[in-house]
Amino acid sequence: MIPDLLTAAQFSTVYNALSLVIAAQLFTAIFLLVSLPRVLPRYRPAVTIALIVCGIAVYHYFRIFDSFNAAFATDSVGGSDGYAQVAGIGFNEGYRYVDWLLTVPLLLVELIAVLALARKMQNRLLLQLVPAAILMIALGYPGEVSGDLGVRTVFGVLSSIPFFFILYVLFIQLSKSLALQPVEVRGTLSRLRFLLVLSWGVYPIAYLLPALDLGADGWVWKQVGYSIADIVAKAAYGLIIYQVAKTKSWIEDPEFAEHERPLSHPLRTVADLDKAA
Amino acid sequence: MIPDLLTAAQFSTVYNALSLVIAAQLFTAIFLLVSLPRVLPRYRPAVTIALIVCGIAVYHYFRIFDSFNAAFATDSVGGSDGYAQVAGIGFNEGYRYVDWLLTVPLLLVELIAVLALARKMQNRLLLQLVPAAILMIALGYPGEVSGDLGVRTVFGVLSSIPFFFILYVLFIQLSKSLALQPVEVRGTLSRLRFLLVLSWGVYPIAYLLPALDLGADGWVWKQVGYSIADIVAKAAYGLIIYQVAKTKSWIEDPEFAEHERPLSHPLRTVADLDKAA
Repeated sequence: MIPDLLTAAQFSTVYNALSLVIAAQLFTAIFLLVSLPRVLPRYRPAVTIALIVCGIAVYHYFRIFDSFNAAFATDSVGGSDGYAQVAGIGFNEGYRYVDWLLTVPLLLVELIAVLALARKMQNRLLLQLVPAAILMIALGYPGEVSGDLGVRTVFGVLSSIPFFFILYVLFIQLSKSLALQPVEVRGTLSRLRFLLVLSWGVYPIAYLLPALDLGADGWVWKQVGYSIADIVAKAAYGLIIYQVAKTKSWIEDPEFAEHERPLSHPLRTVADLDKAA
Repeated sequence: MIPDLLTAAQFSTVYNALSLVIAAQLFTAIFLLVSLPRVLPRYRPAVTIALIVCGIAVYHYFRIFDSFNAAFATDSVGGSDGYAQVAGIGFNEGYRYVDWLLTVPLLLVELIAVLALARKMQNRLLLQLVPAAILMIALGYPGEVSGDLGVRTVFGVLSSIPFFFILYVLFIQLSKSLALQPVEVRGTLSRLRFLLVLSWGVYPIAYLLPALDLGADGWVWKQVGYSIADIVAKAAYGLIIYQVAKTKSWIEDPEFAEHERPLSHPLRTVADLDKAA
């Protein structure tokens, strides 16, 4: 599956894409860590999980980046003759699955945590989402590492079953809980599910790209596709979770909002909600 | 584009310039992190983004520095015979674009954040500035990596379109919001736009330098020019954002100012503004 030869442009594209993911996730994690006091303590678990997810991705992308750099080499100045796979070291695609096995369940925990639901409802949703997420990743792995298209297809289909179950929980079960969220964040939270599902949609596309037999170009676009999907699903997603946590904090604690919000920013608090009711 | 041979003086100049950027950005980031409690909570997002921008630059300059050191080697004692490009490793110019793709939009977010505008106005400005900044960098990249002068020119012109749109938003659209800022920071904020645009002006000059065919000297000055522009546009700019945030914090909260300002420093607060009105 891994091409024997990459042009200098193909090599640079993968190199820069992998490095971009490291920078984006590392500094999103640092931003969220520094910004933790900007939300009420009750929303800090959600933001903490968001920064942990980005941190786990940074660790794995450092490994993927180093593995890629070691696996390809050139004899020419500036790589003008292209980069060939070297003997002795193979590019380890499995890393991504180890990353996802940890981060994908946590992304769902992050979403449930920022909703701040009643304990019973929260536990019920987590007991459905977390095992399904682990199953989805675990069933994708044997297909990814297999060179056989039949094996890829079987495990691709098996892995879709927990995926569709997650969709069912997010879009049917969760809808009742979303209706109880403050109107300021309801739209964002609803769209967040689509962001999650759309960015996850890149993975099966990248998974099936080798079947199209696009050669080295197909492989390069698979790496770029995974990289962009990881930035959207972890860093961008985490920043939106933080925005939701911040807005809910302002609404629920007017004294906190008084210090945190810009003076020109209109403030609607739980007190106003009571007045309107 | 990358010269085959650098003299010892040319090699040292690039080496020292790249290292200077690492030192300047790293310690500006640390200074801003330590100084975060010196501004009111409502201005900490702006200062946090300023330190994140410097941090992202540090990450990329470590990679650029290592790439430069690995790409050139000398056989002579102390490099007296000059440094030649070695086979097997190319100096990766693309890093700068990956850095700018993340930092240039954030520099604009930083400026808008310190203005502390009403949410609606803030979102409107960000929806114009951030996509334009991403487009400007993305359109510059194909020209930068191309050896062909025609391709460089076409993408240089395309990339100028979002650049001029950003100028329009900063100097026409933003002027009304600036008029609402306290008089103590209005001049600084206005000049900050010029600092941003002037330091950005170095990039197109450096971009076009290869067209002048100055050989290795042209390439060395391009590296030095990019380095100085990055220090001005990120570290110096971030420190000015911090000064603005500090001044606005003192004005808006006299009790905070009482603890923060030097005793001999004159203090004007919102209370005085009310009296004058």
